[in-house]
Amino acid sequence: MDERVREHAAVLVDWSARVEAGDDVVVSVAEDAHELGVAVAEALGERGANVTTLYGSAEVSRAYLKGAEAGSEGGDGDGDDGDDGDGAPSFDDDPAVERALFEAADAYLRIGGGRNTTASADVASETRQAYAKARQGVREARMDTDWVSTVHPTRSLAQQAGMAYEEYREFVYDAVLRDWEALADEMAAMKDALDRGDEVRIVTERDDAPDTDISMSIAGRTAVNSAASVAYDSHNLPSGEVFTAPYDTEGEAFFDVPMTIDATRVRDVHLVFEDGEVVDFSAGAGEGALASVLDTDAGARRLGELGIGMNRGIDRFTDSILFDEKMGDTVHLAVGRAYDACLPEGESGNDSAVHVDMISDVSEDSRLEIDGEVVQRNGTFRWEDGFEG
Amino acid sequence: MDERVREHAAVLVDWSARVEAGDDVVVSVAEDAHELGVAVAEALGERGANVTTLYGSAEVSRAYLKGAEAGSEGGDGDGDDGDDGDGAPSFDDDPAVERALFEAADAYLRIGGGRNTTASADVASETRQAYAKARQGVREARMDTDWVSTVHPTRSLAQQAGMAYEEYREFVYDAVLRDWEALADEMAAMKDALDRGDEVRIVTERDDAPDTDISMSIAGRTAVNSAASVAYDSHNLPSGEVFTAPYDTEGEAFFDVPMTIDATRVRDVHLVFEDGEVVDFSAGAGEGALASVLDTDAGARRLGELGIGMNRGIDRFTDSILFDEKMGDTVHLAVGRAYDACLPEGESGNDSAVHVDMISDVSEDSRLEIDGEVVQRNGTFRWEDGFEG
Repeated sequence: MDERVREHAAVLVDWSARVEAGDDVVVSVAEDAHELGVAVAEALGERGANVTTLYGSAEVSRAYLKGAEAGSEGGDGDGDDGDDGDGAPSFDDDPAVERALFEAADAYLRIGGGRNTTASADVASETRQAYAKARQGVREARMDTDWVSTVHPTRSLAQQAGMAYEEYREFVYDAVLRDWEALADEMAAMKDALDRGDEVRIVTERDDAPDTDISMSIAGRTAVNSAASVAYDSHNLPSGEVFTAPYDTEGEAFFDVPMTIDATRVRDVHLVFEDGEVVDFSAGAGEGALASVLDTDAGARRLGELGIGMNRGIDRFTDSILFDEKMGDTVHLAVGRAYDACLPEGESGNDSAVHVDMISDVSEDSRLEIDGEVVQRNGTFRWEDGFEG
Repeated sequence: MDERVREHAAVLVDWSARVEAGDDVVVSVAEDAHELGVAVAEALGERGANVTTLYGSAEVSRAYLKGAEAGSEGGDGDGDDGDDGDGAPSFDDDPAVERALFEAADAYLRIGGGRNTTASADVASETRQAYAKARQGVREARMDTDWVSTVHPTRSLAQQAGMAYEEYREFVYDAVLRDWEALADEMAAMKDALDRGDEVRIVTERDDAPDTDISMSIAGRTAVNSAASVAYDSHNLPSGEVFTAPYDTEGEAFFDVPMTIDATRVRDVHLVFEDGEVVDFSAGAGEGALASVLDTDAGARRLGELGIGMNRGIDRFTDSILFDEKMGDTVHLAVGRAYDACLPEGESGNDSAVHVDMISDVSEDSRLEIDGEVVQRNGTFRWEDGFEG
């Protein structure tokens, strides 16, 4: 076994999930994530934790959902035949085993890495939605644990990233095997700046792309130092971003990093904001998918998140939001739902059924200002060597 | 997917586990049993059951136990360091997640089929025992479900059987895809004969092997029609045996089918019984392993089971007790523990920490008598064409 698999497991168990002796840990292992599953089990045994291992197979899930579709075909909509009348199968609410499992768990470690990122492509979206809707209690119980989501580098994820397998493994371990303590300290400086500030302005002026000049209020909002650990209320490994919940956005922004929305590749998004709302938009590709996001509901035209990517182990776009939004020298803005952690107690932020992140490279011809003061120029933060205020 | 995988899943879900809509089903999928796991999930979706899928990986289990061994090294035996003083790591009793999982489950389907049948060979037996001992409540909760154990044909099991992979797949499907209803009816005739009888005598007289002539009492005992279904109190797929709990054994028996005891191949076992106990024994190979079984405790020298193999889809020895003891035209005797199902209410049968099955081919030069009447001669039962009383 590559020693980095064991190191990945140690970061996941110790830094991210903070597992202690006696903890009940549920681990979900995807089809091709066996090796990391083995390393995690070994680490959990060593720490004196208890482990229950789920098989997080996309093909098994797909088969179950396709079976449910077949079982509900020809139904009369009376609820007796597993068909709730809208064509989608009906599912029992919060099945006892799943609920009991997560309610009893202290931590949940999800190890992604299947054999085919589009393994469930032929399941009707109504079926998925019906399944998800019937599992809200299960999901809440799962979110109440110290949960962490990570991936094992697989050929399928390499393919999605457009990379060779060996190359992709280097990429993943560069992203995951950081000095998290040091990065958390550095991100704390960014969090402080955002917490103290009232207004953020992002400017990029590049010859080869439309300009960005966008301002937003962050007064009264609290930034999250997402340092890949439940101790920081951060549930992704890798992580490495600081994010907050902006409002009253004005100006325009160009996003040069491509993204995938509902299986459609979307590129070169341009948004124009007035009075906090998107009033005009365009995309070089996938404009229809973008339009349908923005038309979801009222909140879908307002920003829910401003995130500063600070993980310099991530140096390229791999079509996976787990990595892309944490890329060093990028910022991202998300239209849609805001995270509660960024809001004052009792206040509700932007609400929406969607949350779609859009990413800009800020490594060149770019600056980020807080209350008129430059905090990052051309990717370099003001506390770093080489910063030019 | 080979259509037989789907047929196997249907037998498992419908005939064996009797799953109904709304049931909470836990499925454990071994490393190389993915395909059958997919087919079972599809069938469960179609039936309207709920499914939670465990990863039954021997390598993950081994890693956890090795981790626990490493974590308890250098302990002082005070219980604080995960070492209970005898060198084995200590484990929490009945961890909450595992217990809750099985307590909430209606059925448990275990699909074996790993990549290496000796994947845990380097785990100390003290560690395994400590782990098993700490999970008695979990095991009881699991046995309280409608549980069924089966295997998906894998290369590793083919290797253990000494067969080519394609050949082994044919073997498994021949054994599993029976007309179970018809076989259950035929086995019911055997069960009736045993239930009505007081004494069983087995005689084989072959030129190439020591004679068998052994008698045992079965008066007051109830035979189990093990028809691969929870409806018959039978939890293996394949099954196909009728068994009871004999006592007062006299005579000698020779077992020509080899077996594996604690990783030692044992062949040509010969046992001599007087007053119900083994008073002399020998083996052509592995006599030491046999001796250590017989010396385990007082019950280990008495019979706990007489079984009649009636699954003619199983026509060869494959070094797997799941198949071997159900082979058509064989009988097996087990030293050690008797099954409660065979005993009158409130009566306890032969008790022992062990239960080791030993198998004889009875297809030639052989007869099985109940109360002096021949029930099976040269493998043919008295209700079959060609029977020679």
